[in-house]
Amino acid sequence: MSDENINGECVTVSLGDRSYDILIGRGLMADAGAEIAKRLPGAKATVITDETVAQNYLAPLTESLQKVGIEIDPLVLKPGEKTKSYENMEAACDHILKCKLERGDAVIALGGGVIGDLTGFAAGIVRRGMKFIQIPTSLLAQVDSSVGGKTGINTSAGKNLVGVFHQPQLVLVDTDTLDTLSPREMRAGYAEVAKYGLIDRPDFFDWLEKNWQGIFDGGPERIHAIATSCRAKADVVAADEFEHGSRALLNLGHTFGHALEAATNYDSKRLVHGEGVSIGMVLAHQFSARMNLCSPDDGARVAKHLKAVGLPISINDIDGDLPSTDILMEHIAQDKKVSRGELTFILTKGVGKSFVANNVPANEVWRFIEESRNA
Amino acid sequence: MSDENINGECVTVSLGDRSYDILIGRGLMADAGAEIAKRLPGAKATVITDETVAQNYLAPLTESLQKVGIEIDPLVLKPGEKTKSYENMEAACDHILKCKLERGDAVIALGGGVIGDLTGFAAGIVRRGMKFIQIPTSLLAQVDSSVGGKTGINTSAGKNLVGVFHQPQLVLVDTDTLDTLSPREMRAGYAEVAKYGLIDRPDFFDWLEKNWQGIFDGGPERIHAIATSCRAKADVVAADEFEHGSRALLNLGHTFGHALEAATNYDSKRLVHGEGVSIGMVLAHQFSARMNLCSPDDGARVAKHLKAVGLPISINDIDGDLPSTDILMEHIAQDKKVSRGELTFILTKGVGKSFVANNVPANEVWRFIEESRNA
Repeated sequence: MSDENINGECVTVSLGDRSYDILIGRGLMADAGAEIAKRLPGAKATVITDETVAQNYLAPLTESLQKVGIEIDPLVLKPGEKTKSYENMEAACDHILKCKLERGDAVIALGGGVIGDLTGFAAGIVRRGMKFIQIPTSLLAQVDSSVGGKTGINTSAGKNLVGVFHQPQLVLVDTDTLDTLSPREMRAGYAEVAKYGLIDRPDFFDWLEKNWQGIFDGGPERIHAIATSCRAKADVVAADEFEHGSRALLNLGHTFGHALEAATNYDSKRLVHGEGVSIGMVLAHQFSARMNLCSPDDGARVAKHLKAVGLPISINDIDGDLPSTDILMEHIAQDKKVSRGELTFILTKGVGKSFVANNVPANEVWRFIEESRNA
Repeated sequence: MSDENINGECVTVSLGDRSYDILIGRGLMADAGAEIAKRLPGAKATVITDETVAQNYLAPLTESLQKVGIEIDPLVLKPGEKTKSYENMEAACDHILKCKLERGDAVIALGGGVIGDLTGFAAGIVRRGMKFIQIPTSLLAQVDSSVGGKTGINTSAGKNLVGVFHQPQLVLVDTDTLDTLSPREMRAGYAEVAKYGLIDRPDFFDWLEKNWQGIFDGGPERIHAIATSCRAKADVVAADEFEHGSRALLNLGHTFGHALEAATNYDSKRLVHGEGVSIGMVLAHQFSARMNLCSPDDGARVAKHLKAVGLPISINDIDGDLPSTDILMEHIAQDKKVSRGELTFILTKGVGKSFVANNVPANEVWRFIEESRNA
């Protein structure tokens, strides 16, 4: 498949001897076995997935693998953010070992961000690193979590605080899998698509404002938006694989978002990751305006678009009680985008002009959150 | 401290931007704080250790850290191989997070190989990689496990099957800590010292045959032997950090050894790692002779020296019942030095002439073990 193929796109993540392809197209699940065998000839494999995804896609994936002679014994976990736990990390590692896979064999993640992050972590630590294949089935996983090698689990101290960098050998994005996604999950993933426009692709954000409905409806806009998002992420990752600097841009909206997720105990009934990011991106623009970095109009524009899509855009959009602003600040400080006790945020000079801001004064953030909640 | 310093030596592990020093000398614990602060100015820290080591060395280390303004809240675990578990990995990660350490802060391992492997693993996965300092207090840890970045835990499927490569910023070897080591642990560590001679330093093995008593007695031979061992390991690691090939040489004696450890349920009353390696090295030489790769005299020479030191040299030296040879072979096959179902062993053409042998026939190994047990 080439970049020119009208039915699909290929985005390469350029990381020297850790480079890999992201294949994006309709119906690609049927090609999974052949694409894996092409990259890892002779390898055995296992699949880790969740109950919801397994219902729709484990059978076609198994069939595709069988066609190239790969028999799998899958591990099917419960769906939901709570699956990213120490307990399931242990279950995933023990499963891979039970399958007697060796370093050159493949661990395949079939599912959304939770399954990808957990499976990638297990693949990164069993035998100190196995081969790893991502088959993301949610929009969020397709445009964000499956690309770039970040893996991990949550702990009581916060999200993704334990994990490794472990790049996959292949990311296979079958855009048809989005047809079975709930509208809410689709919207949540869309927050990450919009993020790439807001970071440094203002033209893409313009395009999204006009064309977002086609992404949801499964038109050709869908593949274009996913490929553009993957390309945007691949560029950032290639420039700073291990997050020493500019990769932090990908966290636009995430420091606020993670704090809100922690504050709702990762209860997906109340808030899912992409919704936290949506609120967080609006807050990042509003806070940037408060710090005189951009115009209040930018925040209003971002809020308007995300609201049109159906995403929450303010802390007060979250159902139920939230802890005090002091507690939210503790979650923000514990977030891993912290350096030597100073708060680091991704702030912006306008749509598509985000930057890494160190030394953000904690008291300003506290007052801003407090005022947002009382607005 | 320079290579020429009569009271100590410095060995550099050359790994590009992951290079680090191994400082080896008497009484270095008192310098720990200053050496850490020199390399990680302004960093906070925590210490992970075990109850036995804490009794002797936690107070002097704490004092040394306080002198440079570093206050620590240590985590003190139970001693023994069983500490390298998922459960303690979780405890170590949660402890580091509880201490609110950031990516640039230091996780210090104070103890033997178990503490170093577990702590290094936790340091490698919290926030996807913290700074890491090794202060090995056993001979085994000083000459082997603290150098080279391999970290991990044991699972029911075998030893060290879950872990990461995570290089320390500094290894600080205070050779005085060996004065409180039990004679048995000292001998077990010595097996790894002898290993470097057997891999590719025949002159060092000659020297050890003549000078081993001085290492045990704490003479100047001790620092020389530790520095030579670290240099030998550093050379191998620098050539193949991620064990794609020649690093496997360091596993001389380890495939047999790990299988014997598994067969005794990691019960340190029956067998500790270095004892398994001692038996394994003798078996590797005897098996090599059986395969007509070296002379039976080589195996006899190795056995004679290790026996003189007081190490076990045969499977029958292990107290209590052992499982069948079939079960031992299963442990050997599950050992991670396996590639695509073929057995990989480190074999030898003589003392100091080891090599990586792929495609070793499993049935030959089975017969050899069976005959060894009935010898």
